[in-house]
Amino acid sequence: MMALNSGQCAVNTATLGFQCPIEQSIDAIAAAGFGGIAPWRREVEGQDVPVIAKRIRDAGLKVTGYCRSTYLPSPTRGGLLANIESNRRALEDAAILGAQSLVMVVGGLPAGSKDIAGARSQAADGVAQLLEHGKRLGVKIALEPLHPVYTAERSCVTLLSEALDMCHHIEGSVPEPWLGVCVDVYHVWWDPNLARDIARAGREKRITGFHVCDWLVPTQDVLNDRGMMGDGVIDIPSIRAQVEKAGYKGLTEVEIFSAQNWWMKPVDEILRTCVERLASSV
Amino acid sequence: MMALNSGQCAVNTATLGFQCPIEQSIDAIAAAGFGGIAPWRREVEGQDVPVIAKRIRDAGLKVTGYCRSTYLPSPTRGGLLANIESNRRALEDAAILGAQSLVMVVGGLPAGSKDIAGARSQAADGVAQLLEHGKRLGVKIALEPLHPVYTAERSCVTLLSEALDMCHHIEGSVPEPWLGVCVDVYHVWWDPNLARDIARAGREKRITGFHVCDWLVPTQDVLNDRGMMGDGVIDIPSIRAQVEKAGYKGLTEVEIFSAQNWWMKPVDEILRTCVERLASSV
Repeated sequence: MMALNSGQCAVNTATLGFQCPIEQSIDAIAAAGFGGIAPWRREVEGQDVPVIAKRIRDAGLKVTGYCRSTYLPSPTRGGLLANIESNRRALEDAAILGAQSLVMVVGGLPAGSKDIAGARSQAADGVAQLLEHGKRLGVKIALEPLHPVYTAERSCVTLLSEALDMCHHIEGSVPEPWLGVCVDVYHVWWDPNLARDIARAGREKRITGFHVCDWLVPTQDVLNDRGMMGDGVIDIPSIRAQVEKAGYKGLTEVEIFSAQNWWMKPVDEILRTCVERLASSV
Repeated sequence: MMALNSGQCAVNTATLGFQCPIEQSIDAIAAAGFGGIAPWRREVEGQDVPVIAKRIRDAGLKVTGYCRSTYLPSPTRGGLLANIESNRRALEDAAILGAQSLVMVVGGLPAGSKDIAGARSQAADGVAQLLEHGKRLGVKIALEPLHPVYTAERSCVTLLSEALDMCHHIEGSVPEPWLGVCVDVYHVWWDPNLARDIARAGREKRITGFHVCDWLVPTQDVLNDRGMMGDGVIDIPSIRAQVEKAGYKGLTEVEIFSAQNWWMKPVDEILRTCVERLASSV
Protein backbone atom coordinates (compact mmCIF):
# COMPACT_ATOMS: atom_id res chain seq x y z
CA MET A 1 0.00 0.00 0.00
CA MET A 2 1.30 3.46 -0.89
CA ALA A 3 2.34 5.79 1.91
CA LEU A 4 -0.11 8.66 2.21
CA ASN A 5 1.16 12.15 1.45
CA SER A 6 -0.43 15.09 3.18
CA GLY A 7 -2.17 16.23 0.01
CA GLN A 8 -4.30 13.09 0.28
CA CYS A 9 -5.20 13.97 3.82
CA ALA A 10 -7.25 16.46 5.80
CA VAL A 11 -6.93 17.79 9.32
CA ASN A 12 -9.89 18.01 11.62
CA THR A 13 -9.25 21.23 13.52
CA ALA A 14 -10.03 19.54 16.85
CA THR A 15 -6.64 17.88 16.38
CA LEU A 16 -5.03 21.27 17.02
CA GLY A 17 -6.88 21.71 20.31
CA PHE A 18 -8.58 24.97 19.26
CA GLN A 19 -5.42 26.80 20.28
CA CYS A 20 -5.76 29.45 17.58
CA PRO A 21 -8.50 31.12 15.56
CA ILE A 22 -9.77 29.25 12.51
CA GLU A 23 -7.90 31.60 10.17
CA GLN A 24 -4.54 30.58 11.62
CA SER A 25 -5.52 26.91 11.57
CA ILE A 26 -6.42 27.19 7.89
CA ASP A 27 -3.08 28.77 7.05
CA ALA A 28 -1.06 26.28 9.12
CA ILE A 29 -2.88 23.26 7.69
CA ALA A 30 -2.39 24.53 4.12
CA ALA A 31 1.26 25.38 4.80
CA ALA A 32 1.81 21.79 5.98
CA GLY A 33 0.65 20.59 2.60
CA PHE A 34 -2.70 19.09 3.55
CA GLY A 35 -5.45 18.74 1.01
CA GLY A 36 -8.35 19.42 3.31
CA ILE A 37 -9.73 20.70 6.58
CA ALA A 38 -12.67 19.79 8.79
CA PRO A 39 -13.69 22.81 10.88
CA TRP A 40 -15.93 22.86 13.93
CA ARG A 41 -19.04 24.94 14.46
CA ARG A 42 -17.54 26.56 17.55
CA GLU A 43 -14.94 28.13 15.27
CA VAL A 44 -17.39 29.19 12.60
CA GLU A 45 -20.76 30.15 14.07
CA GLY A 46 -21.07 33.82 14.85
CA GLN A 47 -18.22 34.58 12.43
CA ASP A 48 -18.41 35.83 8.87
CA VAL A 49 -18.84 32.41 7.32
CA PRO A 50 -18.35 33.42 3.65
CA VAL A 51 -15.04 35.04 4.58
CA ILE A 52 -13.87 31.84 6.31
CA ALA A 53 -15.05 29.87 3.29
CA LYS A 54 -13.06 32.09 0.95
CA ARG A 55 -9.94 31.76 3.08
CA ILE A 56 -10.25 27.98 2.97
CA ARG A 57 -10.74 28.01 -0.82
CA ASP A 58 -7.89 30.46 -1.34
CA ALA A 59 -5.65 28.18 0.72
CA GLY A 60 -6.49 25.37 -1.70
CA LEU A 61 -8.16 23.22 0.93
CA LYS A 62 -11.22 21.06 0.51
CA VAL A 63 -13.68 20.86 3.41
CA THR A 64 -14.20 17.18 4.13
CA GLY A 65 -16.77 17.55 6.85
CA TYR A 66 -18.31 20.21 9.03
CA CYS A 67 -18.27 19.16 12.69
CA ARG A 68 -20.75 18.43 13.91
CA SER A 69 -24.49 17.98 14.34
CA THR A 70 -26.49 19.06 17.35
CA TYR A 71 -27.52 15.89 19.20
CA LEU A 72 -31.03 14.96 18.13
CA PRO A 73 -32.84 12.99 20.88
CA SER A 74 -34.64 15.10 23.43
CA PRO A 75 -37.01 14.49 26.34
CA THR A 76 -39.62 16.58 24.49
CA ARG A 77 -40.97 16.80 20.96
CA GLY A 78 -40.21 20.52 21.00
CA GLY A 79 -36.64 19.75 21.96
CA LEU A 80 -36.24 17.35 19.05
CA LEU A 81 -37.62 19.95 16.65
CA ALA A 82 -35.25 22.59 18.02
CA ASN A 83 -32.35 20.19 17.57
CA ILE A 84 -33.38 19.52 13.99
CA GLU A 85 -33.63 23.25 13.37
CA SER A 86 -30.15 23.78 14.78
CA ASN A 87 -28.84 21.16 12.36
CA ARG A 88 -30.61 22.90 9.47
CA ARG A 89 -28.60 26.01 10.23
CA ALA A 90 -25.43 23.90 10.47
CA LEU A 91 -26.19 22.47 7.03
CA GLU A 92 -26.49 26.02 5.70
CA ASP A 93 -23.10 26.99 7.09
CA ALA A 94 -21.69 23.70 5.77
CA ALA A 95 -22.94 24.67 2.30
CA ILE A 96 -21.34 28.11 2.53
CA LEU A 97 -18.08 26.47 3.60
CA GLY A 98 -18.28 24.11 0.65
CA ALA A 99 -18.22 21.14 3.01
CA GLN A 100 -18.75 17.75 1.45
CA SER A 101 -20.72 16.67 4.47
CA LEU A 102 -22.16 17.56 7.82
CA VAL A 103 -20.76 15.06 10.29
CA MET A 104 -23.80 13.65 12.04
CA VAL A 105 -23.19 12.43 15.58
CA VAL A 106 -26.77 11.67 16.49
CA GLY A 107 -26.68 12.01 20.26
CA GLY A 108 -27.29 9.62 23.13
CA LEU A 109 -30.11 9.10 25.58
CA PRO A 110 -32.20 12.16 26.38
CA ALA A 111 -31.72 13.39 29.96
CA GLY A 112 -33.48 11.07 32.38
CA SER A 113 -34.28 8.45 29.76
CA LYS A 114 -33.36 4.77 29.60
CA ASP A 115 -35.18 4.29 26.31
CA ILE A 116 -32.40 3.62 23.84
CA ALA A 117 -34.79 2.37 21.18
CA GLY A 118 -36.69 5.63 21.49
CA ALA A 119 -33.47 7.62 21.15
CA ARG A 120 -32.59 5.69 18.01
CA SER A 121 -36.01 6.32 16.61
CA GLN A 122 -35.74 10.07 17.28
CA ALA A 123 -32.31 10.09 15.66
CA ALA A 124 -33.62 8.40 12.52
CA ASP A 125 -36.60 10.79 12.38
CA GLY A 126 -34.34 13.78 12.75
CA VAL A 127 -31.90 12.67 10.08
CA ALA A 128 -34.79 11.92 7.73
CA GLN A 129 -36.10 15.44 8.19
CA LEU A 130 -32.70 16.98 7.52
CA LEU A 131 -31.94 15.00 4.41
CA GLU A 132 -33.95 17.09 1.94
CA HIS A 133 -32.37 20.25 3.23
CA GLY A 134 -28.87 18.82 2.86
CA LYS A 135 -29.68 17.61 -0.63
CA ARG A 136 -30.95 21.02 -1.71
CA LEU A 137 -27.81 22.62 -0.30
CA GLY A 138 -25.48 20.03 -1.79
CA VAL A 139 -24.22 18.81 1.58
CA LYS A 140 -24.17 15.11 2.43
CA ILE A 141 -25.26 13.94 5.82
CA ALA A 142 -22.52 11.65 7.09
CA LEU A 143 -23.68 9.47 9.98
CA GLU A 144 -20.75 8.74 12.24
CA PRO A 145 -21.23 5.70 14.46
CA LEU A 146 -19.32 6.27 17.70
CA HIS A 147 -17.60 3.76 19.95
CA PRO A 148 -20.13 2.10 22.29
CA VAL A 149 -18.49 3.79 25.27
CA TYR A 150 -20.30 6.96 24.11
CA THR A 151 -23.75 5.42 23.76
CA ALA A 152 -25.34 7.11 26.75
CA GLU A 153 -24.07 10.61 26.20
CA ARG A 154 -23.08 11.09 22.55
CA SER A 155 -24.35 8.53 20.10
CA CYS A 156 -26.97 5.84 20.37
CA VAL A 157 -25.69 4.72 16.95
CA THR A 158 -22.57 2.67 17.56
CA LEU A 159 -22.04 -0.12 15.05
CA LEU A 160 -21.17 0.62 11.44
CA SER A 161 -23.85 -1.90 10.49
CA GLU A 162 -26.33 0.08 12.58
CA ALA A 163 -25.48 3.31 10.77
CA LEU A 164 -25.87 1.54 7.43
CA ASP A 165 -29.19 0.08 8.51
CA MET A 166 -30.32 3.55 9.55
CA CYS A 167 -29.38 4.98 6.15
CA HIS A 168 -31.34 2.21 4.48
CA HIS A 169 -34.33 2.75 6.74
CA ILE A 170 -34.34 6.49 6.04
CA GLU A 171 -33.96 6.32 2.29
CA GLY A 172 -36.63 3.68 1.81
CA SER A 173 -36.71 2.05 -1.61
CA VAL A 174 -34.74 4.65 -3.57
CA PRO A 175 -30.97 4.85 -2.87
CA GLU A 176 -30.10 8.26 -1.46
CA PRO A 177 -26.63 9.43 -2.45
CA TRP A 178 -26.81 12.39 -0.05
CA LEU A 179 -26.77 10.08 2.96
CA GLY A 180 -23.52 8.41 3.98
CA VAL A 181 -21.37 7.23 6.86
CA CYS A 182 -18.01 8.18 8.33
CA VAL A 183 -15.63 5.41 9.26
CA ASP A 184 -13.46 6.51 12.18
CA VAL A 185 -10.94 3.88 13.21
CA TYR A 186 -11.23 4.89 16.87
CA HIS A 187 -14.90 4.01 16.92
CA VAL A 188 -14.93 0.82 14.90
CA TRP A 189 -11.55 -0.92 15.18
CA TRP A 190 -12.75 -3.42 17.78
CA ASP A 191 -15.84 -4.57 15.83
CA PRO A 192 -15.61 -8.26 14.87
CA ASN A 193 -17.80 -7.50 11.85
CA LEU A 194 -15.74 -4.55 10.66
CA ALA A 195 -14.42 -6.05 7.42
CA ARG A 196 -17.88 -7.27 6.46
CA ASP A 197 -19.45 -3.91 7.22
CA ILE A 198 -16.83 -1.77 5.46
CA ALA A 199 -17.32 -3.91 2.36
CA ARG A 200 -21.07 -3.42 2.69
CA ALA A 201 -20.63 0.34 3.13
CA GLY A 202 -18.65 0.32 -0.10
CA ARG A 203 -21.27 -1.66 -2.02
CA GLU A 204 -23.95 0.70 -0.75
CA LYS A 205 -21.77 3.70 -1.72
CA ARG A 206 -21.97 5.18 1.74
CA ILE A 207 -18.40 5.92 2.75
CA THR A 208 -18.26 9.69 3.04
CA GLY A 209 -15.32 10.08 5.38
CA PHE A 210 -12.40 8.13 6.79
CA HIS A 211 -10.98 9.36 10.09
CA VAL A 212 -7.76 8.23 11.73
CA CYS A 213 -6.14 8.46 15.16
CA ASP A 214 -5.15 5.63 17.51
CA TRP A 215 -6.37 3.82 20.63
CA LEU A 216 -3.83 4.19 23.41
CA VAL A 217 -3.08 1.49 25.99
CA PRO A 218 -3.80 2.49 28.63
CA THR A 219 -6.35 5.14 27.73
CA GLN A 220 -6.53 7.76 30.47
CA ASP A 221 -9.77 9.33 29.29
CA VAL A 222 -12.00 7.84 26.61
CA LEU A 223 -13.05 11.28 25.41
CA ASN A 224 -9.83 13.25 25.23
CA ASP A 225 -6.96 10.76 25.29
CA ARG A 226 -6.84 9.59 21.72
CA GLY A 227 -3.48 8.77 20.26
CA MET A 228 -1.43 9.88 17.28
CA MET A 229 -1.46 7.25 14.54
CA GLY A 230 1.16 4.64 15.37
CA ASP A 231 1.13 5.21 19.11
CA GLY A 232 -1.70 2.80 19.86
CA VAL A 233 -3.05 -0.63 19.07
CA ILE A 234 -5.23 -0.06 16.02
CA ASP A 235 -4.06 -1.79 12.84
CA ILE A 236 -4.79 1.35 10.82
CA PRO A 237 -3.19 0.20 7.54
CA SER A 238 -5.45 -2.83 7.52
CA ILE A 239 -8.56 -0.68 7.98
CA ARG A 240 -7.35 1.83 5.38
CA ALA A 241 -6.86 -1.02 2.91
CA GLN A 242 -10.43 -2.21 3.54
CA VAL A 243 -11.83 1.29 3.09
CA GLU A 244 -9.91 1.81 -0.15
CA LYS A 245 -10.90 -1.62 -1.42
CA ALA A 246 -14.49 -0.61 -0.71
CA GLY A 247 -14.02 2.22 -3.18
CA TYR A 248 -13.35 5.22 -0.96
CA LYS A 249 -11.30 7.81 -2.83
CA GLY A 250 -11.68 10.80 -0.53
CA LEU A 251 -9.22 12.37 1.84
CA THR A 252 -8.02 10.61 4.98
CA GLU A 253 -8.81 12.87 7.91
CA VAL A 254 -6.81 13.11 11.10
CA GLU A 255 -8.99 13.70 14.16
CA ILE A 256 -7.24 13.50 17.52
CA PHE A 257 -8.74 14.58 20.84
CA SER A 258 -5.78 14.72 23.18
CA ALA A 259 -6.19 17.24 25.96
CA GLN A 260 -3.15 16.24 28.01
CA ASN A 261 -0.70 15.56 25.22
CA TRP A 262 -1.01 16.79 21.64
CA TRP A 263 -3.21 19.77 22.42
CA MET A 264 -0.46 21.08 24.68
CA LYS A 265 2.07 21.11 21.84
CA PRO A 266 2.59 23.86 19.24
CA VAL A 267 0.32 23.63 16.19
CA ASP A 268 3.26 23.24 13.83
CA GLU A 269 4.62 20.29 15.79
CA ILE A 270 1.22 18.59 15.80
CA LEU A 271 0.88 19.04 12.04
CA ARG A 272 4.43 17.92 11.32
CA THR A 273 3.85 14.76 13.36
CA CYS A 274 0.57 14.11 11.57
CA VAL A 275 2.34 14.34 8.21
CA GLU A 276 5.03 11.89 9.35
CA ARG A 277 2.59 9.42 10.84
CA LEU A 278 0.20 9.53 7.91
CA ALA A 279 3.15 8.39 5.81
CA SER A 280 4.49 5.79 8.25
CA SER A 281 1.54 4.44 10.21
CA VAL A 282 -1.63 4.78 8.13
CA MET B 1 -42.57 -8.94 36.09
CA MET B 2 -42.09 -10.24 39.65
CA ALA B 3 -39.72 -8.32 41.90
CA LEU B 4 -36.60 -10.36 42.59
CA ASN B 5 -35.98 -11.50 46.12
CA SER B 6 -32.45 -12.01 47.30
CA GLY B 7 -32.82 -15.80 47.32
CA GLN B 8 -33.07 -15.59 43.53
CA CYS B 9 -29.86 -13.61 43.39
CA ALA B 10 -26.13 -13.99 43.92
CA VAL B 11 -23.44 -11.55 44.92
CA ASN B 12 -20.17 -11.38 43.09
CA THR B 13 -17.68 -10.69 45.84
CA ALA B 14 -16.02 -7.92 43.83
CA THR B 15 -19.16 -5.94 44.68
CA LEU B 16 -17.92 -5.78 48.28
CA GLY B 17 -14.56 -4.35 47.23
CA PHE B 18 -12.54 -7.19 48.79
CA GLN B 19 -12.77 -5.40 52.11
CA CYS B 20 -12.88 -8.59 54.14
CA PRO B 21 -11.66 -12.20 53.85
CA ILE B 22 -13.82 -14.57 51.82
CA GLU B 23 -15.12 -16.24 54.98
CA GLN B 24 -16.70 -13.01 56.19
CA SER B 25 -18.09 -12.27 52.74
CA ILE B 26 -19.72 -15.71 52.64
CA ASP B 27 -21.34 -15.16 56.01
CA ALA B 28 -22.53 -11.64 55.20
CA ILE B 29 -23.95 -12.65 51.81
CA ALA B 30 -25.78 -15.60 53.35
CA ALA B 31 -27.05 -13.46 56.24
CA ALA B 32 -28.49 -11.01 53.73
CA GLY B 33 -30.57 -13.84 52.30
CA PHE B 34 -28.81 -14.31 48.98
CA GLY B 35 -28.98 -17.61 47.14
CA GLY B 36 -25.50 -17.54 45.72
CA ILE B 37 -22.00 -16.17 45.61
CA ALA B 38 -19.38 -15.66 42.91
CA PRO B 39 -15.93 -15.62 44.48
CA TRP B 40 -12.68 -14.42 42.90
CA ARG B 41 -9.47 -16.37 42.54
CA ARG B 42 -7.56 -13.74 44.51
CA GLU B 43 -9.67 -14.71 47.53
CA VAL B 44 -9.36 -18.44 47.00
CA GLU B 45 -5.98 -19.39 45.52
CA GLY B 46 -3.39 -20.25 48.13
CA GLN B 47 -6.15 -20.90 50.68
CA ASP B 48 -7.62 -24.21 51.79
CA VAL B 49 -10.13 -24.44 48.96
CA PRO B 50 -12.17 -27.40 50.30
CA VAL B 51 -12.65 -25.50 53.57
CA ILE B 52 -13.93 -22.45 51.69
CA ALA B 53 -16.17 -24.72 49.63
CA LYS B 54 -17.62 -26.28 52.78
CA ARG B 55 -18.27 -22.88 54.31
CA ILE B 56 -20.15 -21.80 51.19
CA ARG B 57 -22.20 -25.01 51.17
CA ASP B 58 -22.91 -24.79 54.88
CA ALA B 59 -24.10 -21.22 54.38
CA GLY B 60 -26.60 -22.55 51.86
CA LEU B 61 -25.11 -20.63 48.95
CA LYS B 62 -24.73 -21.79 45.37
CA VAL B 63 -21.61 -20.75 43.49
CA THR B 64 -22.80 -19.16 40.26
CA GLY B 65 -19.40 -18.53 38.77
CA TYR B 66 -15.75 -18.54 39.70
CA CYS B 67 -14.05 -15.31 38.67
CA ARG B 68 -12.24 -15.39 36.43
CA SER B 69 -10.02 -16.87 33.73
CA THR B 70 -6.40 -15.94 33.11
CA TYR B 71 -6.31 -13.94 29.89
CA LEU B 72 -5.43 -16.26 27.04
CA PRO B 73 -3.69 -14.39 24.18
CA SER B 74 0.06 -14.10 24.52
CA PRO B 75 2.92 -12.86 22.35
CA THR B 76 4.37 -16.37 22.48
CA ARG B 77 3.07 -19.91 22.05
CA GLY B 78 4.60 -20.78 25.41
CA GLY B 79 2.73 -17.90 26.99
CA LEU B 80 -0.57 -19.10 25.57
CA LEU B 81 0.09 -22.61 26.89
CA ALA B 82 0.94 -21.24 30.33
CA ASN B 83 -2.28 -19.22 30.31
CA ILE B 84 -4.26 -22.30 29.39
CA GLU B 85 -2.56 -24.23 32.18
CA SER B 86 -3.42 -21.50 34.66
CA ASN B 87 -7.05 -21.80 33.62
CA ARG B 88 -6.93 -25.57 34.06
CA ARG B 89 -5.99 -25.01 37.68
CA ALA B 90 -8.78 -22.44 38.00
CA LEU B 91 -11.24 -25.01 36.66
CA GLU B 92 -10.04 -27.45 39.32
CA ASP B 93 -10.63 -24.93 42.09
CA ALA B 94 -13.99 -24.08 40.53
CA ALA B 95 -14.92 -27.76 40.73
CA ILE B 96 -13.91 -27.95 44.39
CA LEU B 97 -15.99 -24.85 45.08
CA GLY B 98 -18.95 -26.43 43.33
CA ALA B 99 -19.07 -23.51 40.90
CA GLN B 100 -21.53 -23.82 38.05
CA SER B 101 -19.06 -22.13 35.76
CA LEU B 102 -15.66 -20.58 35.31
CA VAL B 103 -16.23 -17.04 34.07
CA MET B 104 -14.12 -16.76 30.96
CA VAL B 105 -12.91 -13.28 30.14
CA VAL B 106 -10.66 -14.17 27.27
CA GLY B 107 -8.15 -11.31 27.32
CA GLY B 108 -7.27 -8.56 24.88
CA LEU B 109 -4.36 -7.95 22.56
CA PRO B 110 -1.04 -9.49 23.57
CA ALA B 111 1.55 -6.88 24.59
CA GLY B 112 2.89 -5.12 21.51
CA SER B 113 0.34 -6.65 19.16
CA LYS B 114 -2.22 -5.00 16.89
CA ASP B 115 -3.47 -8.34 15.61
CA ILE B 116 -6.98 -8.57 16.98
CA ALA B 117 -7.91 -11.45 14.68
CA GLY B 118 -4.90 -13.34 16.03
CA ALA B 119 -5.95 -12.62 19.60
CA ARG B 120 -9.43 -13.93 18.87
CA SER B 121 -7.99 -17.02 17.31
CA GLN B 122 -5.77 -17.66 20.35
CA ALA B 123 -8.76 -17.15 22.62
CA ALA B 124 -10.83 -19.69 20.69
CA ASP B 125 -7.95 -22.18 20.70
CA GLY B 126 -7.48 -21.76 24.42
CA VAL B 127 -11.15 -22.19 25.26
CA ALA B 128 -11.32 -25.25 23.03
CA GLN B 129 -8.43 -26.81 24.91
CA LEU B 130 -10.04 -26.09 28.29
CA LEU B 131 -13.45 -27.42 27.43
CA GLU B 132 -12.73 -31.12 27.96
CA HIS B 133 -11.18 -30.41 31.33
CA GLY B 134 -14.21 -28.38 32.42
CA LYS B 135 -16.54 -31.08 31.23
CA ARG B 136 -14.70 -33.77 33.16
CA LEU B 137 -14.80 -31.60 36.27
CA GLY B 138 -18.44 -30.65 35.80
CA VAL B 139 -17.71 -26.94 35.42
CA LYS B 140 -19.14 -24.96 32.52
CA ILE B 141 -16.99 -22.49 30.69
CA ALA B 142 -18.99 -19.27 30.55
CA LEU B 143 -17.65 -16.85 27.93
CA GLU B 144 -18.32 -13.32 29.03
CA PRO B 145 -18.25 -10.78 26.22
CA LEU B 146 -17.04 -7.46 27.62
CA HIS B 147 -17.94 -3.92 26.60
CA PRO B 148 -15.87 -2.84 23.56
CA VAL B 149 -14.08 -0.26 25.69
CA TYR B 150 -12.10 -3.22 27.11
CA THR B 151 -11.12 -4.75 23.78
CA ALA B 152 -7.45 -3.85 23.90
CA GLU B 153 -6.70 -4.85 27.46
CA ARG B 154 -9.30 -7.32 28.69
CA SER B 155 -11.44 -9.00 26.07
CA CYS B 156 -11.15 -9.22 22.32
CA VAL B 157 -14.60 -10.83 22.49
CA THR B 158 -17.12 -8.00 22.80
CA LEU B 159 -20.44 -8.70 21.13
CA LEU B 160 -22.82 -11.31 22.50
CA SER B 161 -23.16 -12.57 18.93
CA GLU B 162 -19.39 -12.94 18.78
CA ALA B 163 -19.32 -15.04 21.95
CA LEU B 164 -22.12 -17.21 20.57
CA ASP B 165 -20.28 -17.60 17.27
CA MET B 166 -17.16 -18.60 19.18
CA CYS B 167 -19.08 -21.25 21.12
CA HIS B 168 -20.43 -22.59 17.87
CA HIS B 169 -17.00 -22.59 16.25
CA ILE B 170 -15.48 -24.45 19.20
CA GLU B 171 -18.15 -27.09 19.58
CA GLY B 172 -18.25 -27.98 15.89
CA SER B 173 -21.20 -30.08 14.80
CA VAL B 174 -22.21 -31.49 18.19
CA PRO B 175 -23.86 -29.06 20.65
CA GLU B 176 -21.70 -28.69 23.74
CA PRO B 177 -23.71 -28.04 26.89
CA TRP B 178 -20.56 -27.30 28.91
CA LEU B 179 -19.91 -24.14 26.94
CA GLY B 180 -22.04 -21.07 27.59
CA VAL B 181 -22.10 -17.29 27.83
CA CYS B 182 -22.64 -14.74 30.57
CA VAL B 183 -24.90 -11.79 29.86
CA ASP B 184 -23.76 -8.78 31.86
CA VAL B 185 -25.96 -5.75 31.33
CA TYR B 186 -22.98 -3.40 31.68
CA HIS B 187 -21.28 -4.96 28.70
CA VAL B 188 -24.18 -5.43 26.33
CA TRP B 189 -26.88 -2.84 27.08
CA TRP B 190 -25.86 -0.57 24.19
CA ASP B 191 -25.88 -3.30 21.51
CA PRO B 192 -28.52 -2.64 18.83
CA ASN B 193 -28.76 -6.40 18.26
CA LEU B 194 -29.16 -7.28 21.93
CA ALA B 195 -32.73 -8.58 21.82
CA ARG B 196 -31.96 -10.71 18.76
CA ASP B 197 -28.82 -12.11 20.36
CA ILE B 198 -30.32 -12.86 23.77
CA ALA B 199 -33.09 -14.78 22.02
CA ARG B 200 -30.44 -16.65 20.03
CA ALA B 201 -28.48 -17.39 23.20
CA GLY B 202 -31.64 -18.87 24.64
CA ARG B 203 -32.35 -21.03 21.60
CA GLU B 204 -28.78 -22.27 21.67
CA LYS B 205 -29.09 -22.94 25.42
CA ARG B 206 -26.04 -20.87 26.23
CA ILE B 207 -27.10 -18.48 28.96
CA THR B 208 -25.03 -19.51 31.95
CA GLY B 209 -25.05 -16.29 33.93
CA PHE B 210 -26.91 -12.99 34.15
CA HIS B 211 -25.03 -10.12 35.77
CA VAL B 212 -26.45 -6.76 36.79
CA CYS B 213 -25.14 -3.35 37.75
CA ASP B 214 -25.71 0.00 36.00
CA TRP B 215 -24.01 2.44 33.62
CA LEU B 216 -23.56 5.79 35.31
CA VAL B 217 -23.78 9.13 33.49
CA PRO B 218 -21.21 10.48 33.63
CA THR B 219 -18.89 7.51 34.16
CA GLN B 220 -15.72 8.64 35.90
CA ASP B 221 -13.76 5.47 35.17
CA VAL B 222 -14.90 2.75 32.82
CA LEU B 223 -13.26 0.07 34.92
CA ASN B 224 -14.21 0.92 38.48
CA ASP B 225 -17.13 3.33 38.34
CA ARG B 226 -20.03 1.01 37.73
CA GLY B 227 -23.33 1.91 39.30
CA MET B 228 -25.81 0.28 41.65
CA MET B 229 -28.87 -0.95 39.78
CA GLY B 230 -31.25 1.97 39.31
CA ASP B 231 -28.59 4.68 39.49
CA GLY B 232 -27.71 4.62 35.80
CA VAL B 233 -29.22 4.51 32.34
CA ILE B 234 -29.58 0.80 31.62
CA ASP B 235 -33.13 -0.46 31.23
CA ILE B 236 -32.34 -3.51 33.35
CA PRO B 237 -35.92 -4.82 33.70
CA SER B 238 -36.19 -4.96 29.93
CA ILE B 239 -32.99 -6.98 29.62
CA ARG B 240 -34.00 -9.25 32.50
CA ALA B 241 -37.31 -9.92 30.77
CA GLN B 242 -35.47 -10.87 27.58
CA VAL B 243 -33.11 -13.18 29.45
CA GLU B 244 -35.97 -14.87 31.27
CA LYS B 245 -37.98 -15.18 28.08
CA ALA B 246 -34.93 -16.86 26.57
CA GLY B 247 -35.25 -19.55 29.24
CA TYR B 248 -32.70 -18.50 31.83
CA LYS B 249 -33.70 -19.81 35.24
CA GLY B 250 -30.47 -19.28 37.17
CA LEU B 251 -29.61 -16.67 39.77
CA THR B 252 -29.26 -12.99 38.94
CA GLU B 253 -25.79 -11.93 40.02
CA VAL B 254 -24.84 -8.48 41.23
CA GLU B 255 -21.37 -7.43 40.12
CA ILE B 256 -20.39 -3.82 40.81
CA PHE B 257 -16.90 -2.40 40.49
CA SER B 258 -17.09 0.91 42.29
CA ALA B 259 -13.78 1.98 43.79
CA GLN B 260 -14.79 5.50 44.80
CA ASN B 261 -18.32 4.85 45.98
CA TRP B 262 -19.72 1.46 46.99
CA TRP B 263 -16.39 -0.12 47.89
CA MET B 264 -15.91 2.60 50.48
CA LYS B 265 -19.13 1.71 52.27
CA PRO B 266 -19.61 -1.00 54.90
CA VAL B 267 -20.32 -4.46 53.52
CA ASP B 268 -23.71 -4.65 55.22
CA GLU B 269 -24.80 -1.38 53.65
CA ILE B 270 -23.72 -2.55 50.19
CA LEU B 271 -25.62 -5.81 50.58
CA ARG B 272 -28.74 -4.13 51.99
CA THR B 273 -28.77 -1.75 49.03
CA CYS B 274 -28.32 -4.62 46.59
CA VAL B 275 -31.33 -6.39 48.11
CA GLU B 276 -33.44 -3.24 47.80
CA ARG B 277 -32.40 -2.48 44.26
CA LEU B 278 -32.78 -6.05 43.05
CA ALA B 279 -36.40 -5.75 44.15
CA SER B 280 -37.02 -2.25 42.80
CA SER B 281 -34.79 -1.79 39.77
CA VAL B 282 -34.06 -5.17 38.20
